[in-house]
Amino acid sequence: MSFVSRFQRSTIGLWKTTIPLTSRRRFLDIRPISASTVTSSSSWTHNNDNKSSHPLSGVAAAAAAAVFAMTASFSMTHDSFTAADASKTAINRRWTPTEVAREDFDEMVSEHESTQSKLPVFTADQVAENNGDDGKPIWVSYGGFCYDITEFVQNHPGGSEKILMAAGSALEPYWHIYRQHFASDLPTRLLEHMMIGTLDPADQQKIDEQMDVIYETEKDPFEDEPVRHAQLKVHGDQPLNAETPEHLLTLHYLTPSSIFFKRHHHPVPYLLEDQIENYKLEIDLSAYGKGKQRISLDDLKAMPKTEVVATLQCSGNRRSGFNVFERTSGTTWGQGAVSTAKWGGVRLSELLQNAGIGDPIEAQNKGGMQHVRMYAVDGVMASIGIEKAMNPYGDVIVAYEMNGEELSRDHGYPLRLIVPGYAGIRNVKWLKKIELSSEEAEGPWQRGLNYKVLPPSVHDASEVNLDEIPSVNELSVSSGITSVEPAEGVKSDMGPGDTVEMKVKGWAFSGGGRNIVRVDITGDRAKTWKSATLLDGSTQPYGRAWAWTFWETTVPATVQDDGSIHIYCKAVDFAFNTQPESAKDNWNVRGLVNNSWYKRTIMFSRPNTQQ
Amino acid sequence: MSFVSRFQRSTIGLWKTTIPLTSRRRFLDIRPISASTVTSSSSWTHNNDNKSSHPLSGVAAAAAAAVFAMTASFSMTHDSFTAADASKTAINRRWTPTEVAREDFDEMVSEHESTQSKLPVFTADQVAENNGDDGKPIWVSYGGFCYDITEFVQNHPGGSEKILMAAGSALEPYWHIYRQHFASDLPTRLLEHMMIGTLDPADQQKIDEQMDVIYETEKDPFEDEPVRHAQLKVHGDQPLNAETPEHLLTLHYLTPSSIFFKRHHHPVPYLLEDQIENYKLEIDLSAYGKGKQRISLDDLKAMPKTEVVATLQCSGNRRSGFNVFERTSGTTWGQGAVSTAKWGGVRLSELLQNAGIGDPIEAQNKGGMQHVRMYAVDGVMASIGIEKAMNPYGDVIVAYEMNGEELSRDHGYPLRLIVPGYAGIRNVKWLKKIELSSEEAEGPWQRGLNYKVLPPSVHDASEVNLDEIPSVNELSVSSGITSVEPAEGVKSDMGPGDTVEMKVKGWAFSGGGRNIVRVDITGDRAKTWKSATLLDGSTQPYGRAWAWTFWETTVPATVQDDGSIHIYCKAVDFAFNTQPESAKDNWNVRGLVNNSWYKRTIMFSRPNTQQ
Repeated sequence: MSFVSRFQRSTIGLWKTTIPLTSRRRFLDIRPISASTVTSSSSWTHNNDNKSSHPLSGVAAAAAAAVFAMTASFSMTHDSFTAADASKTAINRRWTPTEVAREDFDEMVSEHESTQSKLPVFTADQVAENNGDDGKPIWVSYGGFCYDITEFVQNHPGGSEKILMAAGSALEPYWHIYRQHFASDLPTRLLEHMMIGTLDPADQQKIDEQMDVIYETEKDPFEDEPVRHAQLKVHGDQPLNAETPEHLLTLHYLTPSSIFFKRHHHPVPYLLEDQIENYKLEIDLSAYGKGKQRISLDDLKAMPKTEVVATLQCSGNRRSGFNVFERTSGTTWGQGAVSTAKWGGVRLSELLQNAGIGDPIEAQNKGGMQHVRMYAVDGVMASIGIEKAMNPYGDVIVAYEMNGEELSRDHGYPLRLIVPGYAGIRNVKWLKKIELSSEEAEGPWQRGLNYKVLPPSVHDASEVNLDEIPSVNELSVSSGITSVEPAEGVKSDMGPGDTVEMKVKGWAFSGGGRNIVRVDITGDRAKTWKSATLLDGSTQPYGRAWAWTFWETTVPATVQDDGSIHIYCKAVDFAFNTQPESAKDNWNVRGLVNNSWYKRTIMFSRPNTQQ
Repeated sequence: MSFVSRFQRSTIGLWKTTIPLTSRRRFLDIRPISASTVTSSSSWTHNNDNKSSHPLSGVAAAAAAAVFAMTASFSMTHDSFTAADASKTAINRRWTPTEVAREDFDEMVSEHESTQSKLPVFTADQVAENNGDDGKPIWVSYGGFCYDITEFVQNHPGGSEKILMAAGSALEPYWHIYRQHFASDLPTRLLEHMMIGTLDPADQQKIDEQMDVIYETEKDPFEDEPVRHAQLKVHGDQPLNAETPEHLLTLHYLTPSSIFFKRHHHPVPYLLEDQIENYKLEIDLSAYGKGKQRISLDDLKAMPKTEVVATLQCSGNRRSGFNVFERTSGTTWGQGAVSTAKWGGVRLSELLQNAGIGDPIEAQNKGGMQHVRMYAVDGVMASIGIEKAMNPYGDVIVAYEMNGEELSRDHGYPLRLIVPGYAGIRNVKWLKKIELSSEEAEGPWQRGLNYKVLPPSVHDASEVNLDEIPSVNELSVSSGITSVEPAEGVKSDMGPGDTVEMKVKGWAFSGGGRNIVRVDITGDRAKTWKSATLLDGSTQPYGRAWAWTFWETTVPATVQDDGSIHIYCKAVDFAFNTQPESAKDNWNVRGLVNNSWYKRTIMFSRPNTQQ
């Protein structure tokens, strides 16, 4: 059975939403990629020196390289339809994820079904030729069809750099690695709008056969994923994107590792015994004319240990709150992509001092060394400013412990960076190299659309200059409600029109070490506010409050005619920043940093039937 | 002519709003207090060792001490009406500034006029006895009446510490110094609600005579105020509270000293030549077991100079935006209590290092030295956390220069602190002493109600524990519109219903060094937003953006039926904190840190007359 037919033969070229996700993903359970590339450490190594026009990095490298070779060997046997002709056929207008998400699907289907029969046929060689070089368009093929993605590249939610890896080739091997493309129907629906033709069936046959070989002979990169806690709320499992469920979020001040939210970009690195024995953290100051150091895990653990209680939060936490207004791209997190642990490790400033940084102000002002860049085993790259890295009050550490235990694989074993008060992505897991630089990190996690907050009215990333928008670093003030229940003495026969005392609990957090100084709660839609009692976390030192604050209170709430109760909360931080009421005016394409009032509705009683 | 009669004899005990403020303040132009106390440097010295139950500090000390002596010598000749009787007569309920501001004045007048005739008479000695000691109530007298202020003390906008200075005595000498009590009708209207009786006319006569002596023989502490720029928007002139007018706010990136906003608490210190020659900045580390240093101005100027471009903003800037919902207490600032200058001076961290602080982390963690306290010549005290003071990226300086010139008297000559990214009050002017301490500064500017942001539903400060609310330090993200005019090509005959392109300019700023990364503008009441072009200030280093960012854009705006156009702006900072839409839900009694969307309405055309 070919790759395409096994996958979704009946909907080729139009991935109808009626096909359940599970069946689409079934094939992923079969093993892919050669076992040797997974177990050798080199396949996990970020190749910083790759200067090709379509750099391949991280786990995709092996698979992609194989398929590049494969497509290049396809013979060009098809008719002489040209790129110029094709562009006339393609729907020549830019579609954004939001527009596609909003469009009427049935209408789109009928519109495109009539188009499909008239589509030209291209060969794999023709696709390969249109790789974006020298001003040429950027084509890809997938599932028997060809697509012109030139206009879409800037809007690729995973960053233009990543999608350009597939320029001029088949998408199958990439999506085999980046399986988040199967976590929703959006990727395939977006492709529909870029369709320019079909792929020569003989060429598609070769791709399918090659993919079959991969599934049947190579190790699945996700085969070695750790066992996860059953209570995690999983949004996607390959790679794992899972949040802490609401009812467990404020059960522990320090979130147990097992239910700590997990947000991965790739399979979790699996290190063999000898790889761990030989694991070295590289500290590279060569850009500043200083040397390189390679520190073993044992040597690191022999250095003075610093413990920091820090909350990590995904920049996309509470993204689902944006989708109420307009769909954004990315995991539809609730409030649970936030957790807290006590991290133990070595101060980054000390490591950089030992490596010879000297006066960091001088390194920055005279040497132009503005950034500290991190490289992870799984290919992720990120950086932080030197003013955070070297700040004696910044408390950045290279951690090897979480809640008093060795880091688990899901949380970065054997080493990760902890950047208190910064977005999760900067707390690089599986850390292998730290580098001083005049430039921020390369890669989509620092420079791409992934972590860029676009203006609220911008739906097309090509309207803005991403270089001028800083990535998400420090986090804004936010909060959430985790429990609402009737306070003692509330009578069970109360209903619509009554005011009932409700017991409410939750969390609040702000980035940059800014303490939570107040949390306001309302049960009457903001007519009156009551300040909650601040509990755990409320006595953190001013300006270095790296962890969340728990709170609880009782608040009078009005029972609505439908029997519901609305409870809102909003927090205030040490700089007296507050949360905006609505997510609407801070809506952004990537759905980042939603810190609007947290609003929760519960059913309290039966509806008022007298109306 | 007695003090009271000269002041407002016809309204004694009820300061009707019909009397213009100017006539109430006329007497203030007459000279008061002995010239010797003003010109000797000791009278300007903060007396930190005063341990009396009603400590007198700053400029009020001399006047208050004199009047305390005076009232104590009054003979007690009156009837035996007791405090217990009086409390029955008093209106036994707590009034807050907001409630009083909201109440119907005429109704209040008639209510109280009927009460006045039945009031008991007290002597000055009886007033003096009720000074709050040993659980006794707190009485004061003013203008021939006696007031029980026990319940009000916590709500005194200037802080309970200040009002307690007058416990058991006449208010006249205090208000003579703290003339902000005459800047609005609120103080006297509040007193109305606390009236318990009249003061024995003989005693009031003595107070009036004594005040007459003060006016006629002593130097007016405000006599030596600097000449001010005529364009300043003056809210109160004794002490000066004046903002930069809107049309000049974004004319210069560095605000000229003359139109830089000025917010004083006392008369501007006037130093004689020999006082300047002998001026020493004291650095006191004795609390940490280290020594004291006294540094002359010349020695300070011989140290390495650091220049910082920093925006100062009063915590109450944009307070008037709160008053739309409910009146707050304090100067009704527009958007102009914010300005920017290039400050030159010596790093505070270097001064503390020279004085022997050693490792500041150790001083904090092991020595408990959490705070750096500042003392000013005019009696103001404030402190900042050591993590700001000693932060190599905090850029705190002791400044002697402003925009390349010597500090002017209005801006702190000869020395002031510059705490970039912190509220104006922490940037202590006329700085004379810096002290390391385990406790934050004493005094109302750090611990009092003045700089405490209360929860939005709290109107009575006694409902909260002020000690648990941190003072305003770091500032939140805010912005303002300074100019709206038709863009090129907008036709003059456009009117209601038309969409017109408007050219809009303004400023944006956030505390804590957080850069402004975006400013969004709308002309259609937030249906769509346009991001402005960021101008001066947009290239400040990340995390150390201590100064504002100017912006401009053109935005389509809808002309309303009344001919008006509404333009809103909101800014986003480096931590992606945003401005809340409405000031309503962050309303607080003292009207601090209003950072809601800046909304400006201009008349564009004639109204639609066809309706």
